[in-house]
Amino acid sequence: MDSCVIPLRHGGLSLVQTTDFFYPLVEDPYMMGRIACANVLSDLYAMGITECDNMLMLLSISQKMNEKERDQVMPLMMKGFRDAAEEAGTSVTGGQTVINPWIIVGGVASVVCQPNDFIMPDSAIPGDVLVLTKPLGTQVAVNAHQWLDIPEKWNKIKLVISREEVEQAYQEAMLNMATLNRTAAALMHKFNAHAATDVTGFGIIGHAQNLSQQQKNDVAFVIHNLPIISKMAAISKAGGNLFGLLQGTSSETSGGLLICLPREQAARFCAEMKSSRVGLSGAMGQDGGAGDGQQAWIIGIVEKGNRCARIIDKPRIIEVPYRGSVVSAQEGSNNNASPPEVQLT
Amino acid sequence: MDSCVIPLRHGGLSLVQTTDFFYPLVEDPYMMGRIACANVLSDLYAMGITECDNMLMLLSISQKMNEKERDQVMPLMMKGFRDAAEEAGTSVTGGQTVINPWIIVGGVASVVCQPNDFIMPDSAIPGDVLVLTKPLGTQVAVNAHQWLDIPEKWNKIKLVISREEVEQAYQEAMLNMATLNRTAAALMHKFNAHAATDVTGFGIIGHAQNLSQQQKNDVAFVIHNLPIISKMAAISKAGGNLFGLLQGTSSETSGGLLICLPREQAARFCAEMKSSRVGLSGAMGQDGGAGDGQQAWIIGIVEKGNRCARIIDKPRIIEVPYRGSVVSAQEGSNNNASPPEVQLT
Repeated sequence: MDSCVIPLRHGGLSLVQTTDFFYPLVEDPYMMGRIACANVLSDLYAMGITECDNMLMLLSISQKMNEKERDQVMPLMMKGFRDAAEEAGTSVTGGQTVINPWIIVGGVASVVCQPNDFIMPDSAIPGDVLVLTKPLGTQVAVNAHQWLDIPEKWNKIKLVISREEVEQAYQEAMLNMATLNRTAAALMHKFNAHAATDVTGFGIIGHAQNLSQQQKNDVAFVIHNLPIISKMAAISKAGGNLFGLLQGTSSETSGGLLICLPREQAARFCAEMKSSRVGLSGAMGQDGGAGDGQQAWIIGIVEKGNRCARIIDKPRIIEVPYRGSVVSAQEGSNNNASPPEVQLT
Repeated sequence: MDSCVIPLRHGGLSLVQTTDFFYPLVEDPYMMGRIACANVLSDLYAMGITECDNMLMLLSISQKMNEKERDQVMPLMMKGFRDAAEEAGTSVTGGQTVINPWIIVGGVASVVCQPNDFIMPDSAIPGDVLVLTKPLGTQVAVNAHQWLDIPEKWNKIKLVISREEVEQAYQEAMLNMATLNRTAAALMHKFNAHAATDVTGFGIIGHAQNLSQQQKNDVAFVIHNLPIISKMAAISKAGGNLFGLLQGTSSETSGGLLICLPREQAARFCAEMKSSRVGLSGAMGQDGGAGDGQQAWIIGIVEKGNRCARIIDKPRIIEVPYRGSVVSAQEGSNNNASPPEVQLT
């Protein structure tokens, strides 16, 4: 499970906790703080938990930074973390900071829940469909951005993408990673989700596999569609199947939720993800950024099977446009609440 | 405060949490795991909390270790951590591990409490006395042990201590650091403690200062006695006041609790610390090791004052013998429950 659930000695309550810490992967310290916080909280959201009672922040400051660098970078990272916590309706009370060769940022999210506050991720049934709430490709986008400055790497991919597009894809990846999965968690209850997990280090197929193995019923997950940040599939191919993106093994950071939903609910789930804020406040949303309305995609089906997951031979690649271009394409139209344009082949 | 206390939405309950992580300071991975766990839990114990609902373990494996070293060291460290958690009546459910240049070990302790489960550390009154439940000098002992192999350092202290004594002091420091402050936490309730903290990185004077500043009443803490692992005071003097041990600034790791107790209760508190196990099980105790009966000392007084702490000009140094010699000295006597031999000068 993405979080641990500890039964308490008090009236049916459970303590649900999760922790995560990792190394910076984007250059912007503020965004890195937001991403780290979103990533920690995501494990709660994957269980349909929308509230968090407390966050602890875990930091290590790099000994290689001079005092000026520390004074510039660390407060920004902490502010990003705190802002994301605030957007999540919680606050950061406690934590620890040490000196270390590398920067580390992470946290601990804890909440005390009643039994119906969370959804155990074990009740998928044949006939469910799989929904994914963020596009794949963050690892490819972050690496491609680093390769702008490494000629031998850049030469491998420059035929399929421009420098400007790499920059846009990187911005898109950052926004996605910094987006809370909180709306998805709330909608899991509304649309009767049977199980969910969040997509992170093991890639979509790794997490689908893990989730399938926790199911009470004899099910298998089959993925037909791969929504991927635009051009990242092309980069992966040009680079010789970089990170196994098309096989679903490419790591994601603070990825979307992978949710098993009753088939008849899935399209409405996706439509509400896109249109609504589910009454949650959102600091980023107020800027018109992440949190405003997220796309979600039906990416596969749950069939009878042996608790495994696979991607079909030639999955449909859904090119997810950079947010800038999405916004401009929709200007003047009231098309926000349209159902997701996906199909199961 | 040593832990954060978060009021919950459920019937007067609070979530109390603390986190700590740091770098190994002893060579024995198993003992290091125990120390790390004892150190994390100590922040709960300082608030008189005796139970812990869950622990998360935070680890980083050093990239400089080869596979064989990892396979030997990390499981031992994890076992030490888990064993100490078990002794504390809790278990480790969850955590995260990353690769890093340095080894890091730490954890998160969480408990959901009713209001009378914890003692807010703010109610010291003039007339209270200060009790300390572990001797000082862990930093000096750990460093002296490293200096056995550094001739220029060793030469400075070899006139006041033998190599064998350094080894014994190091073992004593390890045992103390690995000892849970849980008995002290339980006795805080029994003997009506007014406030407490645990002694760690800021040394006895730093933590006394912090505690004094949180008091509701106009009090000052005055420390008269310094219980110190035998010979560590001599090493500190020989080294030119190493770490400021006699000024109370030397860091401690997983140090004792510093507790404000009503004067008439303090001697009985110390006697019960030494004699009783307060009904707590103890894995180490069963081996006759730490947990069996800990010494505690009355080290000072609370007087009317300005929320500060100080050590008197010539504090009495209490040489705390190495446990081996204590045990052999007491063989055949039934002297376990004797009151602590301390006096306020």
